[in-house]
Amino acid sequence: MKEDGKKYRLEHDSIGEKEVPEDAYYGVQTLRAYENFNITGLKMHPELINSVAQIKKAAAITNFEVGELDKRRASAITQACDEIIAGKLHDQFIVDPIQGGAGTSLNMNANEVIANRAIEILGGKKGDYKLVNPNDHVNFGQSTNDVFPSCGKMAALKLLGNAQEQLKRLEEALMAKAKEFDSVIKMGRTQLQDAVPIRLGQEFHAYASAIRRDIRRFDNAKEEIRCLNLGGTAIGTGLNADVQYFHRVVKNMSTLTGEELVQSYDMIDATQNLDSYAAVSGIVKNCAVNLSKMSNDLRLMSSGPRTGFGEINLPARQNGSSIMPGKVNPVIPEVVNQVAFNIIGNDVTITMAAEAGQLELNAFEPIIFYNLFESIETLTYAVKTLVDNCITGITANKEHCRKQVENSIGVITAICPYVGYETAANIAKEALRTGRQVRDLILEKGLMDQEQLNTVLDPYTMTEPGILGKDPMEQLRG
Amino acid sequence: MKEDGKKYRLEHDSIGEKEVPEDAYYGVQTLRAYENFNITGLKMHPELINSVAQIKKAAAITNFEVGELDKRRASAITQACDEIIAGKLHDQFIVDPIQGGAGTSLNMNANEVIANRAIEILGGKKGDYKLVNPNDHVNFGQSTNDVFPSCGKMAALKLLGNAQEQLKRLEEALMAKAKEFDSVIKMGRTQLQDAVPIRLGQEFHAYASAIRRDIRRFDNAKEEIRCLNLGGTAIGTGLNADVQYFHRVVKNMSTLTGEELVQSYDMIDATQNLDSYAAVSGIVKNCAVNLSKMSNDLRLMSSGPRTGFGEINLPARQNGSSIMPGKVNPVIPEVVNQVAFNIIGNDVTITMAAEAGQLELNAFEPIIFYNLFESIETLTYAVKTLVDNCITGITANKEHCRKQVENSIGVITAICPYVGYETAANIAKEALRTGRQVRDLILEKGLMDQEQLNTVLDPYTMTEPGILGKDPMEQLRG
Amino acid sequence: MKEDGKKYRLEHDSIGEKEVPEDAYYGVQTLRAYENFNITGLKMHPELINSVAQIKKAAAITNFEVGELDKRRASAITQACDEIIAGKLHDQFIVDPIQGGAGTSLNMNANEVIANRAIEILGGKKGDYKLVNPNDHVNFGQSTNDVFPSCGKMAALKLLGNAQEQLKRLEEALMAKAKEFDSVIKMGRTQLQDAVPIRLGQEFHAYASAIRRDIRRFDNAKEEIRCLNLGGTAIGTGLNADVQYFHRVVKNMSTLTGEELVQSYDMIDATQNLDSYAAVSGIVKNCAVNLSKMSNDLRLMSSGPRTGFGEINLPARQNGSSIMPGKVNPVIPEVVNQVAFNIIGNDVTITMAAEAGQLELNAFEPIIFYNLFESIETLTYAVKTLVDNCITGITANKEHCRKQVENSIGVITAICPYVGYETAANIAKEALRTGRQVRDLILEKGLMDQEQLNTVLDPYTMTEPGILGKDPMEQLRG
Amino acid sequence: MKEDGKKYRLEHDSIGEKEVPEDAYYGVQTLRAYENFNITGLKMHPELINSVAQIKKAAAITNFEVGELDKRRASAITQACDEIIAGKLHDQFIVDPIQGGAGTSLNMNANEVIANRAIEILGGKKGDYKLVNPNDHVNFGQSTNDVFPSCGKMAALKLLGNAQEQLKRLEEALMAKAKEFDSVIKMGRTQLQDAVPIRLGQEFHAYASAIRRDIRRFDNAKEEIRCLNLGGTAIGTGLNADVQYFHRVVKNMSTLTGEELVQSYDMIDATQNLDSYAAVSGIVKNCAVNLSKMSNDLRLMSSGPRTGFGEINLPARQNGSSIMPGKVNPVIPEVVNQVAFNIIGNDVTITMAAEAGQLELNAFEPIIFYNLFESIETLTYAVKTLVDNCITGITANKEHCRKQVENSIGVITAICPYVGYETAANIAKEALRTGRQVRDLILEKGLMDQEQLNTVLDPYTMTEPGILGKDPMEQLRG
Repeated sequence: MKEDGKKYRLEHDSIGEKEVPEDAYYGVQTLRAYENFNITGLKMHPELINSVAQIKKAAAITNFEVGELDKRRASAITQACDEIIAGKLHDQFIVDPIQGGAGTSLNMNANEVIANRAIEILGGKKGDYKLVNPNDHVNFGQSTNDVFPSCGKMAALKLLGNAQEQLKRLEEALMAKAKEFDSVIKMGRTQLQDAVPIRLGQEFHAYASAIRRDIRRFDNAKEEIRCLNLGGTAIGTGLNADVQYFHRVVKNMSTLTGEELVQSYDMIDATQNLDSYAAVSGIVKNCAVNLSKMSNDLRLMSSGPRTGFGEINLPARQNGSSIMPGKVNPVIPEVVNQVAFNIIGNDVTITMAAEAGQLELNAFEPIIFYNLFESIETLTYAVKTLVDNCITGITANKEHCRKQVENSIGVITAICPYVGYETAANIAKEALRTGRQVRDLILEKGLMDQEQLNTVLDPYTMTEPGILGKDPMEQLRG
Repeated sequence: MKEDGKKYRLEHDSIGEKEVPEDAYYGVQTLRAYENFNITGLKMHPELINSVAQIKKAAAITNFEVGELDKRRASAITQACDEIIAGKLHDQFIVDPIQGGAGTSLNMNANEVIANRAIEILGGKKGDYKLVNPNDHVNFGQSTNDVFPSCGKMAALKLLGNAQEQLKRLEEALMAKAKEFDSVIKMGRTQLQDAVPIRLGQEFHAYASAIRRDIRRFDNAKEEIRCLNLGGTAIGTGLNADVQYFHRVVKNMSTLTGEELVQSYDMIDATQNLDSYAAVSGIVKNCAVNLSKMSNDLRLMSSGPRTGFGEINLPARQNGSSIMPGKVNPVIPEVVNQVAFNIIGNDVTITMAAEAGQLELNAFEPIIFYNLFESIETLTYAVKTLVDNCITGITANKEHCRKQVENSIGVITAICPYVGYETAANIAKEALRTGRQVRDLILEKGLMDQEQLNTVLDPYTMTEPGILGKDPMEQLRG
Repeated sequence: MKEDGKKYRLEHDSIGEKEVPEDAYYGVQTLRAYENFNITGLKMHPELINSVAQIKKAAAITNFEVGELDKRRASAITQACDEIIAGKLHDQFIVDPIQGGAGTSLNMNANEVIANRAIEILGGKKGDYKLVNPNDHVNFGQSTNDVFPSCGKMAALKLLGNAQEQLKRLEEALMAKAKEFDSVIKMGRTQLQDAVPIRLGQEFHAYASAIRRDIRRFDNAKEEIRCLNLGGTAIGTGLNADVQYFHRVVKNMSTLTGEELVQSYDMIDATQNLDSYAAVSGIVKNCAVNLSKMSNDLRLMSSGPRTGFGEINLPARQNGSSIMPGKVNPVIPEVVNQVAFNIIGNDVTITMAAEAGQLELNAFEPIIFYNLFESIETLTYAVKTLVDNCITGITANKEHCRKQVENSIGVITAICPYVGYETAANIAKEALRTGRQVRDLILEKGLMDQEQLNTVLDPYTMTEPGILGKDPMEQLRG
Repeated sequence: MKEDGKKYRLEHDSIGEKEVPEDAYYGVQTLRAYENFNITGLKMHPELINSVAQIKKAAAITNFEVGELDKRRASAITQACDEIIAGKLHDQFIVDPIQGGAGTSLNMNANEVIANRAIEILGGKKGDYKLVNPNDHVNFGQSTNDVFPSCGKMAALKLLGNAQEQLKRLEEALMAKAKEFDSVIKMGRTQLQDAVPIRLGQEFHAYASAIRRDIRRFDNAKEEIRCLNLGGTAIGTGLNADVQYFHRVVKNMSTLTGEELVQSYDMIDATQNLDSYAAVSGIVKNCAVNLSKMSNDLRLMSSGPRTGFGEINLPARQNGSSIMPGKVNPVIPEVVNQVAFNIIGNDVTITMAAEAGQLELNAFEPIIFYNLFESIETLTYAVKTLVDNCITGITANKEHCRKQVENSIGVITAICPYVGYETAANIAKEALRTGRQVRDLILEKGLMDQEQLNTVLDPYTMTEPGILGKDPMEQLRG
């Protein structure tokens, strides 16, 4: 017992001896890593901790199957892993998510916690590594270099699934609005300038279409990381892994977790090249692009209430201002924008880290995981609040939208095939200069009659390709 | 004729009148764009010019088929387009690749050049737009907003194909080296520290595996952009496009170009969301990551000649230094690195531009194309020089590699299953401290005998998972 | 003479012999580089070519001064350099701007062109390097590693100066508009929602203030690169440079070019660390941020003409649409946005390249220069067109702006100190619900009288801090 | 009391009524924000919380001075702020760091916590906002839009100071090594190829020089953010802030905090343009570039121990591998690399967010602060561990370095001025081909005699520019 009243046990490793808190499940190597890397003050992602426990369990079972681990130890290790998967002992994972060393610190943190818990299960005392040794038993047939990339992939698969669920909810919410707003005619705008009419429902349908593409891409993202390099050990050559272990361990992981998993085709490549994480990040980034663009639109369309576009109303979620009473701001789209910006920056970090691998290993997986998990998770939560606190509550200012179409000059485009681009342009300029309606000017000039105009300028007709069923020229002639 | 001795014709548009050089095929709108955007001093990419001509041709043919364009004009327009596709008139495309306005400047440049050339074909004089009008005939049923994204996709498809060809050559060259170097045993390194043995051929095989993944991803990239929004006109509603044109134009494009093409499912989405370009850029970026990592390795492995790793020799391609005689530098991998950095930066630009779309249109396609085409093309040429001027000429310093393995401490890892991690670590430290061989220390300590050691430390065995056929423990016991 | 009818001379270097076109001023090393690096198809930036010639001139003069170069050769070299600086022989610089090898290719291209031109001047025949040798005479006391970074800095200094000139023009144009629009009262918006009144002139003043900050930062940027590592030769140790040359060459450069220049304090650091280029790029990027934000605002404020904000009108510069007659788009701000996105991406490339240096050298300067020069120059031209074709022609819709203020709810904020946030918020909500004016509701509820309201709601008063001269409470009480 | 056994009080805002936990110091607006933004699960940075409390204190004091706030309330508010600054009540700041709404959520969180604590101090019960109102009293004369940017700057100033301290420690540690290793002669390498000799001390001196530049740039970074827009309220026009408050509040902040602070020159600009944060981030990024380059070098120079460069030894900080016994990895430089990659990605996020401001406000400060604070802090901690756990413990393999110089070919460069580039290149090639020493070949060929060679090839001489005192030619002649 030391001065601070706490009890310690003495452990040693290749560096030397070190006191470890007596009640700690982690050991000397974890403690050194903890002291070396005080960077973010945060902990490893819980899904990463769960995944490393799943891998250690699969390894123990496989090593037992192939005769490399005795039943007693294998059982104890398995039980310890199950406890972690159930959410216990997570506080014993103390290493910083940004760490040097390609994940060795997390791997050894797991090895030590599992070993000490297994030792307890076998009736021993923490630190008595003859009973269960972190390296020789828990880590048998493994290396950080196959364990860490694999648990990163397992965690990412889980998180991508969560994200897809929310994206599907978003797609549904957008489709519901597409239906609800199908009859709201409004002016379409290109380059922020009045263009030609569109239906508000079509706009929401377009958002849904983009999100649907992202959902499919997330399937591709999952395919990128279903292959594990377990069995490859240090550099993919499988040194020290039993040949039967090599062939069985990924299958066992697949069975244990219920995830479709395969062993990497080229284990040496799989150990050193991290382009798959970059590919996943790129796909998440693409989704961020679509979400941010849509959020920008929602903020534009709801701008006002009096001096903006005022086409839609976002649900009021909180006071918008500490000084301006009654102000309501588009806070939910704004948070989506910010999450998107963050994801785009994270992609740069992940790309740089993936590029920086050298020879048989890329040591920079920790920063990749830190950023990738943040990207996927913040996207998930941003989409969730977007659905729940924004999209579903959006209402349309139908009358205002209709008036804007009537008052617009852009409808002149529909006249173009009948009078030519140049004449149409002159009418547009006159309307703008005089403040008069395009419709009136056309009638006045005798370019078309009332009935023709009603057909051609029917807003709904203008928004649906091919709805006339035959070409406009013919109709006029007929 | 003006003071400068050049002749001009007078043209006008909505902005007013303007003199255009008499011999120019472009017209007033092109000239205004040229004056507005003097940004890079460069010209549009030739493949973009070819693609816009192909689209104009397909549009003219389709408009003729559906009765919107008379045969005479359609033929003249088609002929003008064919000339451009054959490489003529490219000097008439004078607008800057970085331009405001969502590509209207390029589209009008094409419309004007094609119109004036068609006018000539019909026996008229340039500028006599009653014969063939840039807007009312060449651009009929079209808008910049369906033409420009579509021609960007066509150009990208072509360039991606070129890139894939070079990547396939690279994969083959790497596989040839994988075979050639299969028997070169060397030390594997993780985190730049001696790890365990590997075969040089395995390393090249790993590079080939990574490139193979990229080639597959390029197929995905092409799938992202096979859908065109032709027929959607201004905002995807198809306003002013004949309904039959709407249904036929993409099919005609497919027939004319021989590319598999489909019409976008949601034309409004397709007009405003540019995530597909970001997706393509992301895939090109992933390839850049792999190429750069490989190039870093080649530079490391060839470092020296006397004070570096010295495992391989890159072919000498040029004097390495203006001051240091005899110096040969890894200039080819270095240029690949730089191209990779450029591609990664371009991806950020493309991502930002894709995010910045507003409502019915993203006006920032010009900068996307400028960057995307540069990314794909510089990658193509970088890979070409990498294959031709580097990979195929690499030689191995087999003897040096072998000696390094023998002299290494990392082989201790193979002993680990027999003596345990801790004992092995102590031997490693002793070897490092004393400069002695691991093998000698093990024999001296009587931990294993000569025969066992020969089996376990056989370098080839150490580099192939499962080559022993049964687990090491058993062998020793047996 | 070969089959192609062209004449060649035979040159050789360490790699071997090679035919060089007889009339070429470049030599064998340039030709090899040209063949190795066919990446962009572009040429080196003219300012870089001028700068390398200036350095070669300064070196020749200095070497002559210190007795390392005879007068005849020094004169011939100097004359050759002067010709290049005057714009001649630029077509002889054929190496690709993206090149491996830290700039050796450009340096040798310069050495060979200058040597051959000097040989001619001395009456010799191109290729007769005994007269003037590219390495031993033109490059004497130099290395690519001090020449190339130095000429990059010289070119950047020049380009930054050009950019500053345009930025100053922009600041002036914005200030002129600030004055012109000082009496235009409009609604300020935060988060695109109506906030409180502002004067349009204040907004333009704010833009000018931001640009003024950028102009100052460009001064900092120039300070970052005024120190040259000339004299450091290969790695900064100055090997092979005469000690007097070492001490004089930068002073001579300063005298010859008229630029304030100093020698780097730590020459070894200066040879290997490229953070100064990254710093310059970062400053250019900050300016791009301000320009892009302002451009976004201009596009928003000019949105319409009928269904947008409609507060200002940008001058019409070209037809906005190929299909929509009369449409005018904000093409100039749009091109500024795109240039900004490109600069931001370029900064990532430059950052990665600067990070990738190894030991005594960073070999990736070519890609840094390629991107940095593009960033500065496209910014320069984008600002130029922004001033000339947009800012100076902007007009305000004063009446529309005034009506929007009167109709707004945001003026309620000014009432807040008199009635409290909560009461004010209730009035705001009632006004929004009923469509009534805030002013009427306050009077109706007897919260303030007409006179008080006139004072407090005076729009000009609301836009100028402290204009009342004393606190509002007191005024009401008084 | 509700079913969950917890007690609640009822609060209301413009949105409606809501139950707040009875013991919570935060109120209804905070709670809504908490529910809207569940993005990261993290809390606001403590320095941001401290800074907002400092601002609220300065505002209360200033409002009291100018007669806007009575003494009792001002005292209570001040006391509440002091408690927060002392570290209390931080758990009451529950809003997510990534939040929509330009920081209103944090500002209201602060207003509510301070109000409720002040209410308690005045003997009231939490929620009794007549005593002290979050908006009307705590936030008087303020807006989120002047409070939030200002507290971000205050926090950044603090964090930058911490970073500078660690950078100064790093510079000192590097200078100590520069001195310690001044006599260690080694081969310099350019492009990873043997170049010419350098002293290890010179390399460390170069690292120190780069860091010194960063330290100076951090001073510039602080200058960028010393100007606060307090007094500008909603959009910089100062609406609702007393004119005397406007003129005094920043001075009071300066006095209270001891930081040099000024009021922004153009308050409207200061409210909407966030380029200063981007500038700070850019400077932090430049430092990351230098740190990462240095870390790459440390990893290269310590590569081995047997098959790498082996010039230096990094202190062993933890077992390097879970499978490879005795392996020690450069974990500290690796974590610095990763922090650098993260900072570079964060800079992209910050840049995008700064660009995305619209009109009178940039609503995306929360993501800027989240990334900027992470960048500065992780840099600080990374530098700290770099100094403590790496730099100070580095040792040199002097003998190995010396042998490499002797064995190298690069020394031929020093011979160049005496025999010409071409002859020197031939000797270099012969040495490489035959494995012989450059020195022997020169003697054998009679190009120089032993004495001359001793002078010219003296390694120390070769590493110090101008050390010979006169030009080499002359010496030989003499």
